[in-house]
Amino acid sequence: MAPAQQQAAPHPSSERLACIGAGLVGSAWAIVFARAGFAVSLYDSSAAVLASAPQRIRQQLEALHANGLLDEPAEAVAARVRIADSLAQALQGVAYVQESILERAELKRALLQEIETLDDGRLVVGSSTSGIPASAFACGLKIAARVLVVHPVNPPSLIPLVELVPSPDTSPAALAFARQLMQACRQSPITVNREIEGFVINRLQAVLLREAWSLVKDGVASAEDVDKTVRDGLGWRWAFMGPFETIDLNAVGGVADYARRLGPLYQGIAASRDHQDPWDEEWIAQVEAQRRERLAPDQLQDRAHWRDLRLMSLARHWRDLERATGDVSS
Amino acid sequence: MAPAQQQAAPHPSSERLACIGAGLVGSAWAIVFARAGFAVSLYDSSAAVLASAPQRIRQQLEALHANGLLDEPAEAVAARVRIADSLAQALQGVAYVQESILERAELKRALLQEIETLDDGRLVVGSSTSGIPASAFACGLKIAARVLVVHPVNPPSLIPLVELVPSPDTSPAALAFARQLMQACRQSPITVNREIEGFVINRLQAVLLREAWSLVKDGVASAEDVDKTVRDGLGWRWAFMGPFETIDLNAVGGVADYARRLGPLYQGIAASRDHQDPWDEEWIAQVEAQRRERLAPDQLQDRAHWRDLRLMSLARHWRDLERATGDVSS
Repeated sequence: MAPAQQQAAPHPSSERLACIGAGLVGSAWAIVFARAGFAVSLYDSSAAVLASAPQRIRQQLEALHANGLLDEPAEAVAARVRIADSLAQALQGVAYVQESILERAELKRALLQEIETLDDGRLVVGSSTSGIPASAFACGLKIAARVLVVHPVNPPSLIPLVELVPSPDTSPAALAFARQLMQACRQSPITVNREIEGFVINRLQAVLLREAWSLVKDGVASAEDVDKTVRDGLGWRWAFMGPFETIDLNAVGGVADYARRLGPLYQGIAASRDHQDPWDEEWIAQVEAQRRERLAPDQLQDRAHWRDLRLMSLARHWRDLERATGDVSS
Repeated sequence: MAPAQQQAAPHPSSERLACIGAGLVGSAWAIVFARAGFAVSLYDSSAAVLASAPQRIRQQLEALHANGLLDEPAEAVAARVRIADSLAQALQGVAYVQESILERAELKRALLQEIETLDDGRLVVGSSTSGIPASAFACGLKIAARVLVVHPVNPPSLIPLVELVPSPDTSPAALAFARQLMQACRQSPITVNREIEGFVINRLQAVLLREAWSLVKDGVASAEDVDKTVRDGLGWRWAFMGPFETIDLNAVGGVADYARRLGPLYQGIAASRDHQDPWDEEWIAQVEAQRRERLAPDQLQDRAHWRDLRLMSLARHWRDLERATGDVSS
């Protein structure tokens, strides 16, 4: 497969981007791009979803502004998002497409085939999929060298991490373009070198969740106490340092010193998990009961709103700290 | 074994506490207790360690004060810490002993035996051990019903989580006393119901670290990109919500809804780890090289200082947020 043509780094002043799929994830991407100064075309094959997108975007932009996280009025950012009447119109003059449609490989493949008929030969397509490798829907297509996974954490307008997962067909140029675009949007891109199940973020989350569920199932700790362990303990460091930097700073001689002394201990602890039971109904009911005791079903939505305010407050805190001290955690 | 006598909840105005072991951990505990208003006796069998403790404590208190995390001058807090000349003097009139000596069961047992000779029958002893169950050093002693693990995250003066791990001999009254004491100090206590290897916090850390090391070893991602995944992604939520609250708010129907739909997927991801290799030298060298590329050996200490400032900044942020909005994450 021929490599994609080398492309100039994306620049807000000259580039238009398209978001295909205008639900929660697609709308948040439109905000990320428009906030960075890019012109954005937004399209969804569902007229109802597309019709509701402008209000969804405006509300989120107003919340960002109210929390001090927009440098310009919400309307100025919203004005950069143009609703398109068709895929063809959405793709006119764009350099990059962020695909956020349903999580079904055959739908993503069908969309790519449609995009191919409108392709100018330089379009790069990033998929928001959290679990389907690009090879599963781009393999064999002419555009495959310019398709990769660009997986956000929800919502990308608040949480910076983005996983870039090239397929074996993805060209280095397309990967570099996606990385530069994410950096231009002040997201935090990482590269996942192989199409591994769960990519990186969900693998890390999966092993922690599995141990968390097992501890509750085995009666070692309540769900609330497991939550406190992360919230009031591990999360304090992990909010600004990763696991490697954490242990690198926890031994006088750095990470190698730490690993030689404590590696066998941690290895032993991890390996001591003596069952791999699935999350069965009995187990689910137990955790559900504990959570509902702390949060009634009709309070879930309010608490999700609280979470978003907390995320904004954290984002503002990091930004203020960086502005005041020039200190960035990276 | 007879249960310990029921005790009144510890109260700063009337209670003296002792810290035995005056190194980094013991000094930080002295700060936690003195900051909450308790009178503290500090003792270490090493004259050199004990002699260096006052300066260590003063420096930490001054850093806390400079970062807006003390409600009174550093000297006022330091004045509540009294250096004891002997174990007997340290234990005079105290209700609780926090033991932070070397991580060797036989030393901890010998200390408990010495404490027993000075015991008034109501003393509760909490051990800072991160890995030795209380039954391994208290079993069979007269005082066993009043001994448990009270394991902090380092430093407890900055990170609130504390694991309470009773042995099978620990009385409910002693456990309740330790819990109330930690709450009076504004720490965040959890109860670990069984003496499981790694307790809760190191079990959760161990499974995440193991997957992190494996991802680097397998060439899936660089150590820095794994760090970014946690720091710029997972850590944003885990800094104020645990894993259960996170998924509880990520599905319309709460945690049960989430577990039924996504549990099998996460289970599959966690189970797909196809090797359990130890952290061998080749693997350690690889991560060490990546870390040293980002941080030279002679910068480790500065960066650890940066970490402490970041932790203080995070502590201040949470505190300010709670004071401004009355909003606490619990």
